[in-house]
Amino acid sequence: MALKDEKVTLAHGGGGKAMRDLIEEVFTSVFRPDGMEDQARLQAAALADPGARLAFTTDGFVVDPLEFPGGDIGTLAVCGTVNDLAVGGARPLWLSAGFIIEEGLDLALLRRVVASMAAEAEKAGVRIVTGDTKVVGRGMADKLFITTSGIGVIPPGRDLQAANIRPGDVAIVNGVLGDHGAAIMAARGEMALSAEIASDCQGLGHLMEAVLAVAPGLRAARDATRGGVAAVLNEMAAAAGVAIEIDEAALPLRAEVRGLCEILGLDPLYLANEGTLVLFVPEHEVAAALAAMRATEAGQGAVAIGRVVPGEAGRVSMRSAFGGLRIVDMLVGEQLPRIC
Amino acid sequence: MALKDEKVTLAHGGGGKAMRDLIEEVFTSVFRPDGMEDQARLQAAALADPGARLAFTTDGFVVDPLEFPGGDIGTLAVCGTVNDLAVGGARPLWLSAGFIIEEGLDLALLRRVVASMAAEAEKAGVRIVTGDTKVVGRGMADKLFITTSGIGVIPPGRDLQAANIRPGDVAIVNGVLGDHGAAIMAARGEMALSAEIASDCQGLGHLMEAVLAVAPGLRAARDATRGGVAAVLNEMAAAAGVAIEIDEAALPLRAEVRGLCEILGLDPLYLANEGTLVLFVPEHEVAAALAAMRATEAGQGAVAIGRVVPGEAGRVSMRSAFGGLRIVDMLVGEQLPRIC
Repeated sequence: MALKDEKVTLAHGGGGKAMRDLIEEVFTSVFRPDGMEDQARLQAAALADPGARLAFTTDGFVVDPLEFPGGDIGTLAVCGTVNDLAVGGARPLWLSAGFIIEEGLDLALLRRVVASMAAEAEKAGVRIVTGDTKVVGRGMADKLFITTSGIGVIPPGRDLQAANIRPGDVAIVNGVLGDHGAAIMAARGEMALSAEIASDCQGLGHLMEAVLAVAPGLRAARDATRGGVAAVLNEMAAAAGVAIEIDEAALPLRAEVRGLCEILGLDPLYLANEGTLVLFVPEHEVAAALAAMRATEAGQGAVAIGRVVPGEAGRVSMRSAFGGLRIVDMLVGEQLPRIC
Repeated sequence: MALKDEKVTLAHGGGGKAMRDLIEEVFTSVFRPDGMEDQARLQAAALADPGARLAFTTDGFVVDPLEFPGGDIGTLAVCGTVNDLAVGGARPLWLSAGFIIEEGLDLALLRRVVASMAAEAEKAGVRIVTGDTKVVGRGMADKLFITTSGIGVIPPGRDLQAANIRPGDVAIVNGVLGDHGAAIMAARGEMALSAEIASDCQGLGHLMEAVLAVAPGLRAARDATRGGVAAVLNEMAAAAGVAIEIDEAALPLRAEVRGLCEILGLDPLYLANEGTLVLFVPEHEVAAALAAMRATEAGQGAVAIGRVVPGEAGRVSMRSAFGGLRIVDMLVGEQLPRIC
């Protein structure tokens, strides 16, 4: 049973034979879910652990362009949801994937995206177990949107949340900042840079488990996506009721990203990332956490960037290389639409 | 903190202050999830039952128009996912909701949709525990798309699946067919009918529990959405490897829907439903199942429409009022785009 068309048509969303063929040939032949029902039916020993909790999250992906250096919308859709689970201390297990497709989408592109999702899920150790496909007419969507939801299990006793952050705790990031935002801008041709910047899009589940193994005092972690590191630091400071000070000289930035920001007047703290997190650990666990992170693929550039200081609850500030202090606020307005 | 604008802007998807305000004012103030993290953290005694399984499903909603007699995209987004869980024998517990919004959407409309979702979730006994919002530019989506995912628990020992259907089993529906499809066509002004037909959009969780309480032999159930009753009968016949024969005279149809189909040359078996299911029970449980269904709000029009007969595996046929037999195939091509 081969799809006759090279493009997705409205019939592929109609609930009949064409939809069944599309789903079987493009999706389930790659994701290989168990069974034929409209729902996945799942069992995991970890769920039955007394005290274990379920983690549940969802994210929509509308990135433009669909493919860019370092990934595509499928890579994002898996990593984004896996990371939302992982930074909360959950072990990611299962994903759902809902596709909203504009009539006329190239089937070859859709197949590449699905292959990216399968590869990224494999790396993260999760399974894509259920899905849905809708097709809308030309001009009613922009090629392809994907919404993934994820389920993970938080082992008994784990409690990562921003409210746990304490005075003296140290803020660590796992690598250079802003690559995803810069990669998307470059891919849109919105600037002329000679160097190609690749998105940092990657799963953070293995890194989180490595840190938790050696730094059980880990307070909280967040992946710094839309709004960048500035947004998550502000959210965490507000949730914990603490002040956070970061050190400009410590921020890990790729020379190309630094250059881009200087040219365009952007602040790398607000650039989106898709495989970069901020975590807070008590001071005595900093060395162990950094060493564990650096031993993982996603954490080779791990570095401390700041700490919780006495000061107004919710305030985030940055010490410049010259010793000055400025407020790092949340983004007002929008910097770059459809970054993820 | 009041939103300044009457319309959604790109800034509402940017990851900064505007997005936080939109989420707090429009979504979390209504859905009231626990906690402030990016993931829901859930505990339910039912999960720890030895032998219990998790059910996980997702559906995207792109219905046009967004509001129609009998519901709106929010009602659909909750009922559709709740029903996917319920027909598999799961008790629906938690939903996620991802919103993809076109720049310029009326905030008042968005608030109405969110209120519909909250009301329908309350009726179904589920909680909307996590969500996501993306905003795309004008012309890049058609007003509003919603993707919901749902988690439920299948109690130990329950095993509803189409493969369990046996010769002699009876097919039952819970009420009139095709109302949703007809309501959407009418709402689009694609026909001139004097009577207003309302969508059948409703949750089926309570009905399923009522049937399971009195008819433990229940083999399988499916909600007959896109592709109508014809699609689910074909899927079930194929999965079970049986032939199914339905009785045209037994099909419950509203006079207005029957009239619409005659005028437009449509077959009501292919019209979409959003609160209508087909279930199969062994013959000795038919009376009990019908009585239990009729005692629920969603099952007042319950009636047997056919049975499993000797014949070619996967074949669905219909006996006409005049005694003739015709094949009921799956829909080829598309009947009505963006029905759900």
